[in-house]
Amino acid sequence: MSAIEAGGARRGTGRRRPSAGAAAAPEVGRSRAYRHLVNPFEPVRLFSDDHVAAMHEAALTLLETQGMKVLSAPARARYAQYGAKVDEAAQVVRIDRGLVAKALATTPGEFTFRTLEPEFSVKVGGRSVVFACTSGPPNVADTVSGRRPGTMDDFRNFVRLSQAFDVVHSSGGAVEPQDVPVHLRHYEMMRSQLVLSNKVPFLFARGSAQIADGLELLRIAHGIDAGEFRREPRVWTVINTNSPLQLDIPMAEGIIDFAEAGQVLIITPFTLAGAMAPVTVAGALTLAHAEALAGITLAQMVNPGVPLIYGSFTSNVDMKSGSPAFGTPEYAKAAFGAGQLARYIKVPWRSSNATASNVVDAQAAYESQMSLWGPLMGGANFLLHAAGWLEGGLTASYEKFILDVEMLQMFAELFQPVGASAADIALDAVSEAGHGGHFFSTSHTMERYRTAFYTPLVSDWRNFGQWSADGSKTATERALTVWQDTLAGFVPPERDPAIVEEMDAYIAKRIEAGGALAQT
Amino acid sequence: MSAIEAGGARRGTGRRRPSAGAAAAPEVGRSRAYRHLVNPFEPVRLFSDDHVAAMHEAALTLLETQGMKVLSAPARARYAQYGAKVDEAAQVVRIDRGLVAKALATTPGEFTFRTLEPEFSVKVGGRSVVFACTSGPPNVADTVSGRRPGTMDDFRNFVRLSQAFDVVHSSGGAVEPQDVPVHLRHYEMMRSQLVLSNKVPFLFARGSAQIADGLELLRIAHGIDAGEFRREPRVWTVINTNSPLQLDIPMAEGIIDFAEAGQVLIITPFTLAGAMAPVTVAGALTLAHAEALAGITLAQMVNPGVPLIYGSFTSNVDMKSGSPAFGTPEYAKAAFGAGQLARYIKVPWRSSNATASNVVDAQAAYESQMSLWGPLMGGANFLLHAAGWLEGGLTASYEKFILDVEMLQMFAELFQPVGASAADIALDAVSEAGHGGHFFSTSHTMERYRTAFYTPLVSDWRNFGQWSADGSKTATERALTVWQDTLAGFVPPERDPAIVEEMDAYIAKRIEAGGALAQT
Repeated sequence: MSAIEAGGARRGTGRRRPSAGAAAAPEVGRSRAYRHLVNPFEPVRLFSDDHVAAMHEAALTLLETQGMKVLSAPARARYAQYGAKVDEAAQVVRIDRGLVAKALATTPGEFTFRTLEPEFSVKVGGRSVVFACTSGPPNVADTVSGRRPGTMDDFRNFVRLSQAFDVVHSSGGAVEPQDVPVHLRHYEMMRSQLVLSNKVPFLFARGSAQIADGLELLRIAHGIDAGEFRREPRVWTVINTNSPLQLDIPMAEGIIDFAEAGQVLIITPFTLAGAMAPVTVAGALTLAHAEALAGITLAQMVNPGVPLIYGSFTSNVDMKSGSPAFGTPEYAKAAFGAGQLARYIKVPWRSSNATASNVVDAQAAYESQMSLWGPLMGGANFLLHAAGWLEGGLTASYEKFILDVEMLQMFAELFQPVGASAADIALDAVSEAGHGGHFFSTSHTMERYRTAFYTPLVSDWRNFGQWSADGSKTATERALTVWQDTLAGFVPPERDPAIVEEMDAYIAKRIEAGGALAQT
Repeated sequence: MSAIEAGGARRGTGRRRPSAGAAAAPEVGRSRAYRHLVNPFEPVRLFSDDHVAAMHEAALTLLETQGMKVLSAPARARYAQYGAKVDEAAQVVRIDRGLVAKALATTPGEFTFRTLEPEFSVKVGGRSVVFACTSGPPNVADTVSGRRPGTMDDFRNFVRLSQAFDVVHSSGGAVEPQDVPVHLRHYEMMRSQLVLSNKVPFLFARGSAQIADGLELLRIAHGIDAGEFRREPRVWTVINTNSPLQLDIPMAEGIIDFAEAGQVLIITPFTLAGAMAPVTVAGALTLAHAEALAGITLAQMVNPGVPLIYGSFTSNVDMKSGSPAFGTPEYAKAAFGAGQLARYIKVPWRSSNATASNVVDAQAAYESQMSLWGPLMGGANFLLHAAGWLEGGLTASYEKFILDVEMLQMFAELFQPVGASAADIALDAVSEAGHGGHFFSTSHTMERYRTAFYTPLVSDWRNFGQWSADGSKTATERALTVWQDTLAGFVPPERDPAIVEEMDAYIAKRIEAGGALAQT
């Protein structure tokens, strides 16, 4: 072992690439065009098929017996109209398993988001994987200015960063721009997604008025009429139930409005095992499954066939303090199980890249990795908060965004197929290198080395001396430079000025009319 | 989404555990007794079965045509004696595929390390997972004293740390104690493993004289005769080939001596794709496979049936600089593929937890996570360098050891089975909590909460305010306290003084005779 493994990792490759072998200063590095990702791995199974069926059946029983408390009267009316039993006094809706089955029968197994530029469209479902920016933290942080309330400038910056990296497919809700009043906030949030980005946009479900505004701006940007608009999915929102078994007014309105508009609901019970869900993984997943099914059923009642996503966000709390935890072993297990439940009902599945760390440190990285491997090996189709989430979702971090992009790109590379043809196995190259020789200048290497491996964004592979001489920077410190340079060099996509003008006129008119009060 | 997911993760659980519900200051936390781990997940497959067979066949062809350059004359003589074709002038051994098949037929698919205390014995093979401390870095680092050459005190500290955490099953070679001359170093390295630890010990293969010394000390510690000693595996070493296709003198002697003593060889070609192996994953794996088969064949020729481990250590280099990289996408892919090759030949498989980072930062954490998930989802049986490796193996880090233990414990928890019985699914608890209620004080939670979830060693889940008030410490800073406290509270296992005296007498006698020159 002493010869090589014991520290010889670096010493052993004193055999550096001979400069004669390589062309003069060649560009080395793979393309980072990760717009369409397909996960080639068979999803991990945590539960047996029987157990998955048992959890599904138990969730159906919950909906039939305990039912869902639905705070919105119009939503209760919709449920009643389609055959659910509604107890108006208790605001409880009991949903027969036949209704759920009917809803699942019309839910598409996959669909494609139509974007302003066709090459940014992304498929959802099957083995496809979509990564979306973090969405909704009230605070923002970077290592220069520290932690502070989010602003519209920060929101736009996260939209720019999402646009700048191909591996991020949707700009998401980024950070909450607290410097703009809530009744006006959604205008610039949608406008900036449409003028700074080609990625799939996001819209908060904060009541019907704001949803109508957001969808109208998006319709204008697409330059189509309302009828054509609703024929294809173009925007998504997140519906969080209030676990256990409760759906509030803005969330219920969101389901109805998005379904009517043919747009994408990500119906996501947020269940922390031990707090708002049972302390067991199977219990927390079953409760979440019941709530998701209640939402899916409402959406399909309103508009049979509307595309949607089964969301799961099950983690656990610290049982000493009640603090939520993310990226835990229980989180990864819940992700595996949720993926099984989503596939059981044949609906695309959303999960999250989360951490409870308060700072962009090793904990943030290992909890995020747990939150990436769990969902991605569990077969997730849509990963929300894929880049930028910190502090249990209370902060969007610029440096974390960059480190997350690095990690997402590593997964995008992991998903690329490998060959095992004779040329891949390369016996000729071994012969050319000879016993104890090296491969730097074999023809097999020369033909491939420029793009053979992933070129990192942040990772520093230099030796200790070179790294020290360059300031002994941590990955987080290096990430600072990456986001600053990315924003400094940002070029927005081209937009038809007439369309931007039309959006601006709509916004001006609506602001003059008083904006749109948010339902929260 | 605003209601919950948007930063509501922490706000939402303002519902803290009611103090009335919990018994006064109850102990919360699961046991961390992770001595026997079984991975329940089906291993990930990167290659098709046909491709695995093609790589194996290509490796056999390499051994028959190009052969292995073996620098040790006695080892060449062994190969010749059992029917391999030896070209003495070229020092090349060509091994017929029939000989390889014969060797594989006698290689055990699983075995158990016998330790001084039976409860520390560990099984290797099948779905069992063994974690071993990092092994061999010349330097050591901590955040108080910085980076410096390793000493015998450091070596003993890593043995103590390995002993202190149940999730570490073998003390490994830890750090190289450079303050002791090489011809005397192995005495105290073996002695301290045997008096400070109950875990499976490690012995460097640095020539026959040192191996004989190490095995004799181990025999004395077990208090048995040489005949009984060799009947069970009690110690392991790592054999690194000098890729491509070369086996040096100490490594060849190590194979022969360990095989004769019935002890465990981890035969690990260290192949960096693009440097000492082909630039393709399939090519690098095939070359490594051929070299491992050459070593396995020699071991089984010497002692048919001797237990051993198929080692893989395939990563890639930075093609601009030649620097080795670890925890890359290519590393994880190579791990998946190596696991498939190991299972194809039905030999237990070893992999590694590696990173190229120079500091215990986010890069160290995400590269280590890639190096854990890749091998562990790939079905690894023995993970070397599981705790403490930094800087491409040039440094053993105290803080990294602790962070690695945290990550290993998270995997140990991930491996624990989950139920989906009616009690696990917990419909009664949902009923008890009620719509929009909480589960903190349901009887289902009360019966389980003390041990429901993994209690972390380092992760800090407190809110930003509490964390800031406590000094805004990063995970790496918190890890400092953990290893310092662990060493301060360390209690060595009890040993029979007569046996320690016998070991010391042996060492004194050997030192008086001049020690044992290391073969490197």
